[in-house]
Amino acid sequence: MCGVFGAFTQNGGPVLEDVYLGLYALQHRGQESAGVAWVDDNNAIRTQKGNGLVHLALDQEALAKIDTRCAIGHVRYSTAGGSDPRNIQPLTASNSRGSVAVAHNGNITNAEALKQYLENRGAIFHSLTDTEVLLHLMAHQPHKPMIDAFVDSLRRLKGAYSLVMILDGKLVAARDPWGFRPLVIGQRDRIIYVSSETCALDLVGAKALREVAPGEVVVIDKDEIKSIRIPVQTKCHYQCSFEYVYFARPDSILAGRSVYAVRKALGHCLAKRAPCLSANMVTGMPDSGTIASMGFAEGSTLPYEKAIVRNRYVGRTFINPTQRVRELGVRIKLNPIHDLIKDRKIVVIDDSIVRGTTSQRIIAMIRAGGAKEVHVRISSPPVCFPCYYGIDTPSRVELAAARMNIKELEKIIGADSLEYITVDDLVQAIGLPRNELCTACFTGEYMEGETQDELEL
Amino acid sequence: MCGVFGAFTQNGGPVLEDVYLGLYALQHRGQESAGVAWVDDNNAIRTQKGNGLVHLALDQEALAKIDTRCAIGHVRYSTAGGSDPRNIQPLTASNSRGSVAVAHNGNITNAEALKQYLENRGAIFHSLTDTEVLLHLMAHQPHKPMIDAFVDSLRRLKGAYSLVMILDGKLVAARDPWGFRPLVIGQRDRIIYVSSETCALDLVGAKALREVAPGEVVVIDKDEIKSIRIPVQTKCHYQCSFEYVYFARPDSILAGRSVYAVRKALGHCLAKRAPCLSANMVTGMPDSGTIASMGFAEGSTLPYEKAIVRNRYVGRTFINPTQRVRELGVRIKLNPIHDLIKDRKIVVIDDSIVRGTTSQRIIAMIRAGGAKEVHVRISSPPVCFPCYYGIDTPSRVELAAARMNIKELEKIIGADSLEYITVDDLVQAIGLPRNELCTACFTGEYMEGETQDELEL
Amino acid sequence: MCGVFGAFTQNGGPVLEDVYLGLYALQHRGQESAGVAWVDDNNAIRTQKGNGLVHLALDQEALAKIDTRCAIGHVRYSTAGGSDPRNIQPLTASNSRGSVAVAHNGNITNAEALKQYLENRGAIFHSLTDTEVLLHLMAHQPHKPMIDAFVDSLRRLKGAYSLVMILDGKLVAARDPWGFRPLVIGQRDRIIYVSSETCALDLVGAKALREVAPGEVVVIDKDEIKSIRIPVQTKCHYQCSFEYVYFARPDSILAGRSVYAVRKALGHCLAKRAPCLSANMVTGMPDSGTIASMGFAEGSTLPYEKAIVRNRYVGRTFINPTQRVRELGVRIKLNPIHDLIKDRKIVVIDDSIVRGTTSQRIIAMIRAGGAKEVHVRISSPPVCFPCYYGIDTPSRVELAAARMNIKELEKIIGADSLEYITVDDLVQAIGLPRNELCTACFTGEYMEGETQDELEL
Amino acid sequence: MCGVFGAFTQNGGPVLEDVYLGLYALQHRGQESAGVAWVDDNNAIRTQKGNGLVHLALDQEALAKIDTRCAIGHVRYSTAGGSDPRNIQPLTASNSRGSVAVAHNGNITNAEALKQYLENRGAIFHSLTDTEVLLHLMAHQPHKPMIDAFVDSLRRLKGAYSLVMILDGKLVAARDPWGFRPLVIGQRDRIIYVSSETCALDLVGAKALREVAPGEVVVIDKDEIKSIRIPVQTKCHYQCSFEYVYFARPDSILAGRSVYAVRKALGHCLAKRAPCLSANMVTGMPDSGTIASMGFAEGSTLPYEKAIVRNRYVGRTFINPTQRVRELGVRIKLNPIHDLIKDRKIVVIDDSIVRGTTSQRIIAMIRAGGAKEVHVRISSPPVCFPCYYGIDTPSRVELAAARMNIKELEKIIGADSLEYITVDDLVQAIGLPRNELCTACFTGEYMEGETQDELEL
Ligand SMILES: Nc1ncnc2c1ncn2[C@@H]1O[C@H](COP(=O)(O)OP(=O)(O)O)[C@@H](O)[C@H]1O
Ligand SMILES: Nc1ncnc2c1ncn2[C@@H]1O[C@H](COP(=O)(O)OP(=O)(O)O)[C@@H](O)[C@H]1O
Ligand SMILES: Nc1ncnc2c1ncn2[C@@H]1O[C@H](COP(=O)(O)OP(=O)(O)O)[C@@H](O)[C@H]1O
Ligand SMILES: Nc1ncnc2c1ncn2[C@@H]1O[C@H](COP(=O)(O)OP(=O)(O)O)[C@@H](O)[C@H]1O
Ligand code: SF4
Ligand code: SF4
Ligand code: SF4
Ligand code: SF4
Ligand SMILES: [Mg+2]
Ligand SMILES: [Mg+2]
Ligand SMILES: [Mg+2]
Ligand SMILES: [Mg+2]
Repeated sequence: MCGVFGAFTQNGGPVLEDVYLGLYALQHRGQESAGVAWVDDNNAIRTQKGNGLVHLALDQEALAKIDTRCAIGHVRYSTAGGSDPRNIQPLTASNSRGSVAVAHNGNITNAEALKQYLENRGAIFHSLTDTEVLLHLMAHQPHKPMIDAFVDSLRRLKGAYSLVMILDGKLVAARDPWGFRPLVIGQRDRIIYVSSETCALDLVGAKALREVAPGEVVVIDKDEIKSIRIPVQTKCHYQCSFEYVYFARPDSILAGRSVYAVRKALGHCLAKRAPCLSANMVTGMPDSGTIASMGFAEGSTLPYEKAIVRNRYVGRTFINPTQRVRELGVRIKLNPIHDLIKDRKIVVIDDSIVRGTTSQRIIAMIRAGGAKEVHVRISSPPVCFPCYYGIDTPSRVELAAARMNIKELEKIIGADSLEYITVDDLVQAIGLPRNELCTACFTGEYMEGETQDELEL
Repeated sequence: MCGVFGAFTQNGGPVLEDVYLGLYALQHRGQESAGVAWVDDNNAIRTQKGNGLVHLALDQEALAKIDTRCAIGHVRYSTAGGSDPRNIQPLTASNSRGSVAVAHNGNITNAEALKQYLENRGAIFHSLTDTEVLLHLMAHQPHKPMIDAFVDSLRRLKGAYSLVMILDGKLVAARDPWGFRPLVIGQRDRIIYVSSETCALDLVGAKALREVAPGEVVVIDKDEIKSIRIPVQTKCHYQCSFEYVYFARPDSILAGRSVYAVRKALGHCLAKRAPCLSANMVTGMPDSGTIASMGFAEGSTLPYEKAIVRNRYVGRTFINPTQRVRELGVRIKLNPIHDLIKDRKIVVIDDSIVRGTTSQRIIAMIRAGGAKEVHVRISSPPVCFPCYYGIDTPSRVELAAARMNIKELEKIIGADSLEYITVDDLVQAIGLPRNELCTACFTGEYMEGETQDELEL
Repeated sequence: MCGVFGAFTQNGGPVLEDVYLGLYALQHRGQESAGVAWVDDNNAIRTQKGNGLVHLALDQEALAKIDTRCAIGHVRYSTAGGSDPRNIQPLTASNSRGSVAVAHNGNITNAEALKQYLENRGAIFHSLTDTEVLLHLMAHQPHKPMIDAFVDSLRRLKGAYSLVMILDGKLVAARDPWGFRPLVIGQRDRIIYVSSETCALDLVGAKALREVAPGEVVVIDKDEIKSIRIPVQTKCHYQCSFEYVYFARPDSILAGRSVYAVRKALGHCLAKRAPCLSANMVTGMPDSGTIASMGFAEGSTLPYEKAIVRNRYVGRTFINPTQRVRELGVRIKLNPIHDLIKDRKIVVIDDSIVRGTTSQRIIAMIRAGGAKEVHVRISSPPVCFPCYYGIDTPSRVELAAARMNIKELEKIIGADSLEYITVDDLVQAIGLPRNELCTACFTGEYMEGETQDELEL
Repeated sequence: MCGVFGAFTQNGGPVLEDVYLGLYALQHRGQESAGVAWVDDNNAIRTQKGNGLVHLALDQEALAKIDTRCAIGHVRYSTAGGSDPRNIQPLTASNSRGSVAVAHNGNITNAEALKQYLENRGAIFHSLTDTEVLLHLMAHQPHKPMIDAFVDSLRRLKGAYSLVMILDGKLVAARDPWGFRPLVIGQRDRIIYVSSETCALDLVGAKALREVAPGEVVVIDKDEIKSIRIPVQTKCHYQCSFEYVYFARPDSILAGRSVYAVRKALGHCLAKRAPCLSANMVTGMPDSGTIASMGFAEGSTLPYEKAIVRNRYVGRTFINPTQRVRELGVRIKLNPIHDLIKDRKIVVIDDSIVRGTTSQRIIAMIRAGGAKEVHVRISSPPVCFPCYYGIDTPSRVELAAARMNIKELEKIIGADSLEYITVDDLVQAIGLPRNELCTACFTGEYMEGETQDELEL
């Protein structure tokens, strides 16, 4: 998971600082590194990049002073390529035709094959990112105008990409034909923005205009906002359903649906599908289970309490996994309120179970705090399949729900009961037609046409 | 506001890493700087200190490797003395008699006079902290055993101090005779801990034993836990009521009262004292208003929604107050969920109003989001007086509630209605006798005996 | 000017630390940045790089712990590309055929044309160095064995290159057919070294075996040291004569000639060619004029004094060119010993005059110190032409000796007399045949065949 | 050994940047840390300090922008107190009477006793420096004017101090009654400077006015330069003779004697006292033996060669003493020029032998380089006693010349012959009366009155 943001102004304004602030609002989509790129007075592309959170990686004060008409940015989720600075996006390339910078959310599933093909034609890869494939595809079509080389390159990509780019001094946004990751266009006066989520538009004071459609390329320059189709046919869309369940911020709107409202609905669903009449109280795993647990409380007759406190600094601070820290485990992050759980029967709602180890430890901690019963309810279906579209889910053998049935899992995590919603519940709570949504990590139904085509550049 | 933590072990163990983790749990009490001090093999005191959050200021990995039997730590709230490294606590001093390190939460009200007196006797002050006065008072009694010099020095201090110290290689805790700031003793196996709040004991897996009593000095060494009285008479106690309302973490227990439960009770109180029958919905200002708003919802018939989303990274990240950031104001930090507030009449609960500017901006933002009415309810009485006991409240002229009556304030912040609870409500919600609590910032009833006594060392 | 160093061991040993130390001995060849590359256990190439002096740019302690059989390093002279980390060498590239790292001393004169050609075939350049051209030339011959692609690429290069590379896990050294920059092979037990100068071999305790010949590629692996010819015909060699005059360290041996001995001989020459009988004393501009001035003293009847003291820290420390620093000028760096110069007639020897501004300021300072006469003697011919072979000499319009005759220059720098040696003197002092030496910056006789050939890959 | 520098201006000017530059010129007197202090607009004292060389420890650019009329600075030699930032000078103290900052070159021999005394009166020491004693002595006389408290405090100090201070907003310089360390006053227009050596006056373009006399306090304010006597009687002076031999820069003038000229004279002396007729050549250990070796060559009939090259970056760069570095030993630092030493009989001149290990290693290296004979001549008498006056000489048991006679030492270091000059030679070469010079490290004749007097403040 990553976040992208871009801004273009027709008549000046603090677009680079707005990109900084946009990334700050998208920080939940990636904490590993951050970067920005912008156009300087000579139409050359400049960058600033760094590891860690936005405010550590980038120098707000310096950026605020830079005058540019077009800028983009990226926050990167922790991935294998790790902390190598060459992997920090935006990636850039320039040659006599011009310069390009690209920020990418998603994962190109045929990147390995394309890389092989390009290396056989002399390409030298400098990063370990799948994104770099795009730059080489473009470079290997040197005699076309850049925008044509770009669209032609997209045609060869499989998988998920929501891109924000600087190209020919213009702001270009593109979304793969399946629409896996969100991408939305906003406006404030004469500045046009592109963002992964609407919450970042809110922060910079912009209004959401519309989403970039699956398969659309949007080119923003000083005269107009132009739309181009990527020449790829798809039978249906694959908008990621997990964005609603977990990734996106609750104050964002995706495909016209409020994430907050969807999470509430998931809680209602869960209360109907898997009530827990004997319990005294509902609580949510902070933060991802909070809203669904409020929905569950509303949908059942149980009172809702914020019974588990999450240390505010967790997730932004790096605690070394020393011997002592491993011993303390989940306490470092979470603390139940003893008064509330003592001698009570509790329903705990979370968004999902991945490996199951965290759930196990929290349940143990709640029991140690004196709870009589701990019932677990999950506001999504069991995650049984890896995601190849930009989420670092573990392989099947590590996915708890892929390795055992629910009863076994219930036992292993130590819950008095464990229940999930169904895929139908999920689709219904989201409110989009089923064939517009990706549910592959729940169902294994990946997008079609995964095989590598024979394409000659 | 600051946080202090200490640990002493009789038979080894990771006490220095536990102090690090304890500070991490107390991070909400101070983000300006952090420091630790410990005893090395030669009974000398070593320190590590730095600016910013615990994980930036201190090197967990290095600390985890250090073997010591006694260690203390401190997180400091932003104050005037600012980022000068000399002000970072623990402060230390050593001479032929031995070494001492001190971490202090509170504020000594007669520090200036004592400093004058000590300088006239040749003392050189190296920091700008009131805490250093204590070290010089002790040094100026060179012929007494250190613990006697310490207790005799405390006798001369007015105001608030919850101290954790290393003294003669022992762990010493002390709390002023009025009991302003909390201080609690915990235990895990053969390790004794002292902490500002119980939440930090929870994190390190310790059980709370009891509080350090107002006017008590506790000396912990390898043989025993000894208790000494500070020879000062007081008519009553002044435990800070604002700790319950705002400072302390909701999962802490102060003087036997759960902070969460008190906040819930404050919300119930407020619903009774100042209901808002016309509204459609209650929400809380995150995070400080959250629990009270849940109490308000329970106490009224209104549904509770988490309608305002706080950026998780705010408060841990420094955003430069550039022109653009000032323009965006509270958006940088908070975002209302548009779906929820559009065309609704909303009650917003917060813990307090200090200058009123933030309230004003949030109300405006909620209205801009389409809310029909915005009613504000505050879960404490109006703050009309400055605090001299360790909180950086502004002077009276800046306190909104000191400058105008509630109706005027309601108008200024732009609320459709504004209401508070009373001091009696507050005392009742806390559940301690009124003469055990400080309410000076609400009532102006400061502790007595504020005048400087003529003491000769 | 840059410095390169490499090491390969057949049976273990601290080769990476030796590369560090070799660079330390070559530090005078470049202070802008430093980098090392080595082969890890999986035959992958790892690097460490940084700006500034070797000890700041690299982490000796970390490198000393790494076990590798093959490593190279580079120190870079300040150039236009500046402090951008992407320009720090060794450059690396890897693909399915294997990995390559390259450290380059020299300058490829047809780099721009080759870059154009390669970009038209899809290459993306990541640095601003001429060196990267080589990597792309190799990558664009993907179906040849790497060593063949390498030699074939060298064939297309014009200009100066002394290269140390890791290629296929082997240590490869190469020197352009003209032999501009030095490159020497050394040995210590079973470790083979390649270095820009012999002084670095001395430091690591190695013996010089022989030079890499102009036009030779040397491939060092665990079985043998193999030699390949670059298939380019040249009529003569162009070993840089300025290395003797200025660049190389006095304790190095180039092409069998001791730099110290050559500098002494230049001083003797100068004493014969341009004596200064009326003077009382000879001194040298530290450090570059020192040895020649000792030779001059020997060759004349004048006493030698170290009359100008150079601040030891100059050149390793960055002094900001503030207003005040500009005002103080050369004083920041040099200080004449007043006792010695007062009322004396002085001969000052330097290696060369480039822009003339430094000479002017020093002469003024010596006069201000009370000298009666200041005669300047230069131990090389006038520098009238820019160097295109790896030295950042300014363009002709900035070269003092290109803009005016010697009498004019004498007047401008304020000398009582100014004299040079001739090109014949220089050649004779070096002791190599004239057609083995480059003297282009003195004579304008650049190597032939500068034009770009039409080569298809 | 340390260096101090101060500047006061009556009508503006870049005094703080000049202090920076002065320290840069005095860098050879201390590389461990550097610091500056200055007076701000409110007459408060501000400081900037850091570890390492001046350009790393201090921020020239920031200092250049600060406007102040009075500033001082200090470079510290590596000492036991090590890298603790609290030990970096200038030390400061302030109280209601005013502020003081002090930079100290020398060593107070009764510091321990005074510290004891002061701690018994309540003083808390914050650094491990002997210098801090002075600040407490002043603070313990709170009812006197500061300058009186200062002079009265000096009266109680034994040993060596050359001080530069800010006191009452004035620039104050003081030199102990014995005159151990140099201190000189200079002037440029309306700026008055105080410096350890004249070379720093040269750098800032100032003229030396006169030395601060032993036992003199100089007070510089906007109206005048006032002189006060320290009320201590001494029979003779103890100006450090080793400053001429080793510490001071050759371009400095101490007590009217040129350091360069003294070193030359020491070489002539040595040639007379201990000629070496069989040798072919003289060389000097760089850098400390260079000038004496030139004197030796002049005084004998032998030619002088710079046969040993010292890596320019040594001494400013930290090379970790890894296994490999220990193995390479002195090669890291020095390299003999093989052509020059091969089959020759060589005289090597150095300034002194302390532990003897370096000499041993260099002689071995020169022999390994092919020299037939290596004769060592030392331009000072044998160092047999530790220095208590500001030089970190090792204790007697570690001093080679204290543990054995010269013949034994000759054998241990592996020289074909080893000879020294006498104390009389030294005194004569310096040209000051014997009773004005300290020669204690050669003779053991320490200053008298070393015992602690009973002084009551
Ligand atoms: N500012 C915010 N306020 C509320 N929720 C947020 C905010 N930012 C991100 N989130 C939500 O936090 C959840 C992830 O946090 P959490 O569950 O605590 O971490 P994790 O499960 O990754 O350890 C996601 O569901 C995301 O929607
Ligand atoms: N881990 C935590 N979980 C919930 N609340 C917390 C936590 N840590 C601190 N708090 C509470 O947060 C409140 C302060 O946060 P907030 O209102 O967002 O900041 P402020 O009002 O200072 O801008 C306090 O009431 C404190 O009790
Ligand atoms: N360790 C060394 N000892 C003596 N000379 C050196 C050393 N390292 C480099 N040099 C010589 O120093 C000269 C360059 O120094 P210098 O003249 O002071 O600097 P510049 O002229 O570049 O300002 C070169 O001639 C080089 O050969
Ligand atoms: N800029 C300079 N030029 C020449 N000599 C210097 C300079 N700065 C310091 N010195 C001299 O260098 C000598 C110390 O250097 P060196 O002998 O190389 O180091 P050490 O003996 O401490 O290892 C001293 O005698 C000092 O006078
Ligand atoms: S597999 Fe799951 S996480 Fe991945 S895109 Fe599809 S729904 Fe989203
Ligand atoms: S004045 Fe207010 S904040 Fe201060 S201690 Fe008293 S109750 Fe607490
Ligand atoms: S032009 Fe001059 S500096 Fe350049 S290689 Fe030729 S001789 Fe050397
Ligand atoms: S003992 Fe030696 S080094 Fe110390 S002051 Fe005296 S002469 Fe100088
Ligand atoms: Mg979660
Ligand atoms: Mg708040
Ligand atoms: Mg030079
Ligand atoms: Mg020396």
